[in-house]
Amino acid sequence: MSLSNPLIIDVHGHYTTAPKALENWRNQQIAGIEDPSRTPQVADLKISDDELRESIELNQLAKMKERGSDITIFSPRASFMAHHIGDFQVSSTWAALCNELCFRVSQLFPDHFIGAAMLPQSPGVDPKTCIPELEKCIREYGFVGINLNPDPSGGHWTSPPLTDRHWYPIYEKMVEYDIPAMVHVSTSCNSCFHTTGAHYLNADTTAFMQCIQGDLFKDFPTLKFLIPHGGGAVPYHWGRFRGLAQEMKKPLLQDHLLNNIFFDTCVYHQPGIDLLTKVIPVDNILFASEMIGAVRGIDPETGHYYDDTKRYVLATPHLNEAQRYQVFEGNARRVFSRLDARLKAQGK
Amino acid sequence: MSLSNPLIIDVHGHYTTAPKALENWRNQQIAGIEDPSRTPQVADLKISDDELRESIELNQLAKMKERGSDITIFSPRASFMAHHIGDFQVSSTWAALCNELCFRVSQLFPDHFIGAAMLPQSPGVDPKTCIPELEKCIREYGFVGINLNPDPSGGHWTSPPLTDRHWYPIYEKMVEYDIPAMVHVSTSCNSCFHTTGAHYLNADTTAFMQCIQGDLFKDFPTLKFLIPHGGGAVPYHWGRFRGLAQEMKKPLLQDHLLNNIFFDTCVYHQPGIDLLTKVIPVDNILFASEMIGAVRGIDPETGHYYDDTKRYVLATPHLNEAQRYQVFEGNARRVFSRLDARLKAQGK
Repeated sequence: MSLSNPLIIDVHGHYTTAPKALENWRNQQIAGIEDPSRTPQVADLKISDDELRESIELNQLAKMKERGSDITIFSPRASFMAHHIGDFQVSSTWAALCNELCFRVSQLFPDHFIGAAMLPQSPGVDPKTCIPELEKCIREYGFVGINLNPDPSGGHWTSPPLTDRHWYPIYEKMVEYDIPAMVHVSTSCNSCFHTTGAHYLNADTTAFMQCIQGDLFKDFPTLKFLIPHGGGAVPYHWGRFRGLAQEMKKPLLQDHLLNNIFFDTCVYHQPGIDLLTKVIPVDNILFASEMIGAVRGIDPETGHYYDDTKRYVLATPHLNEAQRYQVFEGNARRVFSRLDARLKAQGK
Repeated sequence: MSLSNPLIIDVHGHYTTAPKALENWRNQQIAGIEDPSRTPQVADLKISDDELRESIELNQLAKMKERGSDITIFSPRASFMAHHIGDFQVSSTWAALCNELCFRVSQLFPDHFIGAAMLPQSPGVDPKTCIPELEKCIREYGFVGINLNPDPSGGHWTSPPLTDRHWYPIYEKMVEYDIPAMVHVSTSCNSCFHTTGAHYLNADTTAFMQCIQGDLFKDFPTLKFLIPHGGGAVPYHWGRFRGLAQEMKKPLLQDHLLNNIFFDTCVYHQPGIDLLTKVIPVDNILFASEMIGAVRGIDPETGHYYDDTKRYVLATPHLNEAQRYQVFEGNARRVFSRLDARLKAQGK
């Protein structure tokens, strides 16, 4: 595509509209934790291609066409990952099912969806146990990224910070395959934190601050994190973060983190996107909407969907045409190099 | 004062520069938790008026004069509250000492400092145990507000949400005395959360979202919360919060929360203050700097202190003269009615 007519790549979509059978299966699986006789077989989940097609065509794909977006990087529903439920085996079976559904969607709509993997994380379990699922998703399913949950406990934050060697097995694989991780928590089981209104945003802020404190990217110069939801509180408090890094005698954030950390545009009003695009260098901003996600309504102040973030990116005064191309297409192709390879193979 | 020449009231200052003797005493107190023979007496802490005067004149007051701010609402150092340390008795003794020092500062500099109380919170302890200290601070010390820690565990979030009846004894007293609470956590003892770079901002976002979920202000129509640090992630994600409230069938945020919740201006760069003043109604914004606080350096991009927030408020294009008066003086007098009474008694 060209600068003036970029591919619109949405780097943050979840399969929030999967057929009800998936949720029913999960409920059975959860019941089986207490009463193993109720544990379902993987083969008990039967969802036809037609059902998958309908769940996408009437929802995400319809809205993508309405809004004019071309491709979505598509991962299992974030709030349903619920890594705190059960043990590694429970997470492992669940992640495999969810990833397979996203793979099937990507096969049914190869021009519009490409997968990113949920990992079978489990609190207190070594992250290296996630590697077989990760490898399957990259090698066999052609996925182009992963979602990494910095808090598999679901709001109790019992894992070490992302800069801890605890996580290095995942990072080694990410570097090997040149895939980024979106740092994305799941549902909160701490009643203090509303899942999408507090826990998600807090996790984004927390992850960024952990990276300021550490020196992770000295160990992994090519590691890439995508911080969703516009980076939580980070761009709004960019002066605070610059100042804190300065007191810690860290390099400028530009050098310390911005070769490795990127923000998406899941910020659901114009002033937020205006701030993001003013404060954060354009190379670090990737278009995304998280459609269909946490905020599904129409903003009475604009008459448009809150999560129709393309409008805000088009309207911000802080991007020229070349910079909009970066946000919509160029940066996604750079950060998700496997997506770029796939697009090139498709002649795009 | 007049619209064009408002009093500059900074509603968020902590005594971060108290003489070293205070920290030494606290360290002894903490040592005494393990070994009671080391527990110091209250009378062991000796700080003269001259020492207090110097700690203020060379620091906060010097900067207030430099920057042209008149009055600071002054409370004990937030990160030192550390309510998670020891039991109620430990917190109670410590809070009393810290509040008394702020009171003495307010007596030494009655034109420039007025107190807000730290509470002797302790994880798992009924908040009503805080009431004697609260009452002493309001009645005897003439304090005009309190700091309420929504997470006395220090980053483990083991208390109920702020909308829970657990907190109602405090709210009843706040209403009785017509004092606001600044919702302010203390140091994080969870290694995931950097204290000032993650825990503070997360708590701000969390508190706001708890209030969206609940209906606290139906029970307490005159209760007032001040959310510090510019409201955490809230103004940047104002569309998200409006949309979440809408999905929960809550009233518009204007009606649901903005008669009771206020934000300060502790946002340390111009684009952040521009966003805050664009998105949040002017009646809900109170000037503050948290000077001397988390971010003490000079911003190399401007040559000015990061926390010199008066500059940003003066420079934002979204406030006219009458609105700047509101932010600097009018709103503080309305929200802190006891401050207003004091100022009137001083002929201001």
